Amino acid sequence: MIIDPVLGGLISFLRIPSVSTDPAHAGDVRQAAEFVVNELLKAGFANARLVEAEGRHPLVRAEWLHALGAPTLIVYGHYDVQPPDPLDEWISPPFEPEVRDGNIYARGASDDKGQTYILLQALARLMREDGRLPVNIKVLIEGEEEVGGEHITEHVATHAGEFQADAALICDTEMFAPDLPTICTGLRGIVYGELLVEGARTDLHSGVYGGAAPNPIQAAAQILSELKDREGRIRIPGFLDRVKPPSPGERAAWARLPFNEQEYLDREIGAPALVGDPAIPVLERTWAQPTLEVHGIRGGFTGEGAKTVIPAKALAKVSMRLVADQDPDEATRQLQAAVAAACPPGVRARFTPIQSGPPSLIDPENPFIRAGAQALEETFGVKTVYMRSGGSIPIVGLFQKHLAIPSVLIGFGLPDDNLHAPNEKFNLSNFYRGIDAIIKYLRLLGVSSIL
Amino acid sequence: MIIDPVLGGLISFLRIPSVSTDPAHAGDVRQAAEFVVNELLKAGFANARLVEAEGRHPLVRAEWLHALGAPTLIVYGHYDVQPPDPLDEWISPPFEPEVRDGNIYARGASDDKGQTYILLQALARLMREDGRLPVNIKVLIEGEEEVGGEHITEHVATHAGEFQADAALICDTEMFAPDLPTICTGLRGIVYGELLVEGARTDLHSGVYGGAAPNPIQAAAQILSELKDREGRIRIPGFLDRVKPPSPGERAAWARLPFNEQEYLDREIGAPALVGDPAIPVLERTWAQPTLEVHGIRGGFTGEGAKTVIPAKALAKVSMRLVADQDPDEATRQLQAAVAAACPPGVRARFTPIQSGPPSLIDPENPFIRAGAQALEETFGVKTVYMRSGGSIPIVGLFQKHLAIPSVLIGFGLPDDNLHAPNEKFNLSNFYRGIDAIIKYLRLLGVSSIL
Repeated sequence: MIIDPVLGGLISFLRIPSVSTDPAHAGDVRQAAEFVVNELLKAGFANARLVEAEGRHPLVRAEWLHALGAPTLIVYGHYDVQPPDPLDEWISPPFEPEVRDGNIYARGASDDKGQTYILLQALARLMREDGRLPVNIKVLIEGEEEVGGEHITEHVATHAGEFQADAALICDTEMFAPDLPTICTGLRGIVYGELLVEGARTDLHSGVYGGAAPNPIQAAAQILSELKDREGRIRIPGFLDRVKPPSPGERAAWARLPFNEQEYLDREIGAPALVGDPAIPVLERTWAQPTLEVHGIRGGFTGEGAKTVIPAKALAKVSMRLVADQDPDEATRQLQAAVAAACPPGVRARFTPIQSGPPSLIDPENPFIRAGAQALEETFGVKTVYMRSGGSIPIVGLFQKHLAIPSVLIGFGLPDDNLHAPNEKFNLSNFYRGIDAIIKYLRLLGVSSIL
Repeated sequence: MIIDPVLGGLISFLRIPSVSTDPAHAGDVRQAAEFVVNELLKAGFANARLVEAEGRHPLVRAEWLHALGAPTLIVYGHYDVQPPDPLDEWISPPFEPEVRDGNIYARGASDDKGQTYILLQALARLMREDGRLPVNIKVLIEGEEEVGGEHITEHVATHAGEFQADAALICDTEMFAPDLPTICTGLRGIVYGELLVEGARTDLHSGVYGGAAPNPIQAAAQILSELKDREGRIRIPGFLDRVKPPSPGERAAWARLPFNEQEYLDREIGAPALVGDPAIPVLERTWAQPTLEVHGIRGGFTGEGAKTVIPAKALAKVSMRLVADQDPDEATRQLQAAVAAACPPGVRARFTPIQSGPPSLIDPENPFIRAGAQALEETFGVKTVYMRSGGSIPIVGLFQKHLAIPSVLIGFGLPDDNLHAPNEKFNLSNFYRGIDAIIKYLRLLGVSSIL
């Protein structure tokens, strides 16, 4: 098989198992960072470099600032990936990229190595074709996006002066549908943490003590079902008070998007039914409503067969997605209070946050957004739509807070890319069109008249 | 140190690491079986023998049937032991028996080698002193009690004719308190199985799908909290209908037992509080009330850090302990119906049983029980108490079902013997008094007038 060098580069990038959450992969994470530096050096960013910090995965930085009079853009992506588990559900191994049916399958294909590589390739091609860039660029690629982004958070907060810019270009979102160019104007925030429930001092024999000893798994179940009812309504007092509904115009635009609830259920979810308040449209539920989700739970004996133990503790991974104008710290306190109130007798329960980020909402009339929409339309030949994302990209809130700049979220993923799941993929046509679109976008921004 | 031969024999027995669940110890398990056969041969059971079956640990059988006109007793114990893990918590190594403060410490000291050895020594001494036994004896010692007892279950079911007897004597329970001779008259049954809850086809990104996709962990939590309320009351329709309350006499006797709820909570449980209906005394809650317990749960991501996934499924290990006159099959159907009724929208949930056994309740007025109580009183100089056990001993149900005989559960363990845990011990005074008591018991049974 003949592979073009651009695809070959992406494959090399995807082969590196840069799982940022797993200390065993620290060397691989570093190798992925060095790969990015090397790509930037090859593109002509002579100052491309790693930024290191004790106990953190490196940041990659590089600047090209010779476009006098043109705007300055931060270009952001991340080179770390989610863990590939469960491994046995992958059709081809997660770190042996395979092209099938016009898609490339690998962990990180879409989130976010494939999209980061679009940025790197667009910059490289502009340099190669023009010998220069149309705008000033400050590259900032991180390796901790999947684990809370502590390094970038600290770094941007303490080096804000070095990141002065007019806008940030972030390539880590998706298109609403195939061939439908999309800009994301809102992201949910997040508070992610652990709910620990503790009962007896040690595991107990359920025959001897069953009926008198508290069961932390049962207690965790009771707490979780107090926090959210059977219909999916969140019952944390005060939690919904700051939720800002979408504007009538936004709701109307969303209603025009090509969305079929039954198809969504059948193709993307594959469950017996959707959950949540049926009076609120699905897109609004996933984009503009907060959530409370359990991501994992463990406790007691879960091996083969039977072991009759009452476990001493249970641990659940729990998050809240937040929407404008909710505040992560306030939401954390509200959840902690609700856990304390819901905790049944016999156990201790507490929620401890691990990471958090605020929600963000960006004005579609911003000129950097409008230029993005134009570049996408010219590339795809279709009018650009605006969506929000239910996901969280904490860097957007960070840029807003420390640099007071808007983020332009142009993404080329697709809804069925299996992010964070087995068989993650990235559409190769979107990959190539993505490079074209970013080149067009930067050239448009170089033409000052549109701003 | 001078060791008497009886204690020396017990030490030799305890030295054999007959861990039945671990295939690496299969040879040791066999050696322990051969040890038992040899003890029986020395005692005068000329037909003592191993009963073998493919892939099973051997049973030990022996008969002495020359007490014409006297009753026939099955004598049951088990020579296999639990794994000794965690090894580093043992003060002396688990298979190097050590005597400290009047106790012998070793894996199996109390459960059940020490108690099985009481039976062997009682038989040996009777033969030595009287040249005969006062009753007919059918010895049946197994090596799979800690792993489900499949061999004995098959063997008794297919050889029921060979086990015709008037009662079974089982030495595998405990005394309610030190120096308080105890007969166990009831055991809870059990249904143990798996609750599987399935939502979407694969794990989903909680940012993208949170608010619309069903969450099987949340659903499992809702189901579990529907089945049992915050106060610990089981809410499975019909489940409690057949529960037979203890008799007023039994309740009064239990109320006289030396039991301090606060001490029980502090010493044995070590949790903030006990659970269950406070109107029902703790002993009744653990002995005569059924339970619904979650033994373990797994689902989604539970590693270090954060992974924002909505899992496709969750699995919980769930059991019901049953009391007379509940039926395992009926209880299973009731639980399955309750799970179906409690299952929230968006997921599928079902309970699948793995193993089950009926509860048993023995009439304290049965003459074999009364003789046991008398023998214990004569040995210990204290009135015998009757307790029940919240645990399950499937062999009791087996004897009831296939042989229609009652089981006499006389045990010499103590509540703090650390069964299944590090530093298992057996009180040596109970060991020696146990031999005396069993000898007295068999002699009493030989005097037909008491039956």
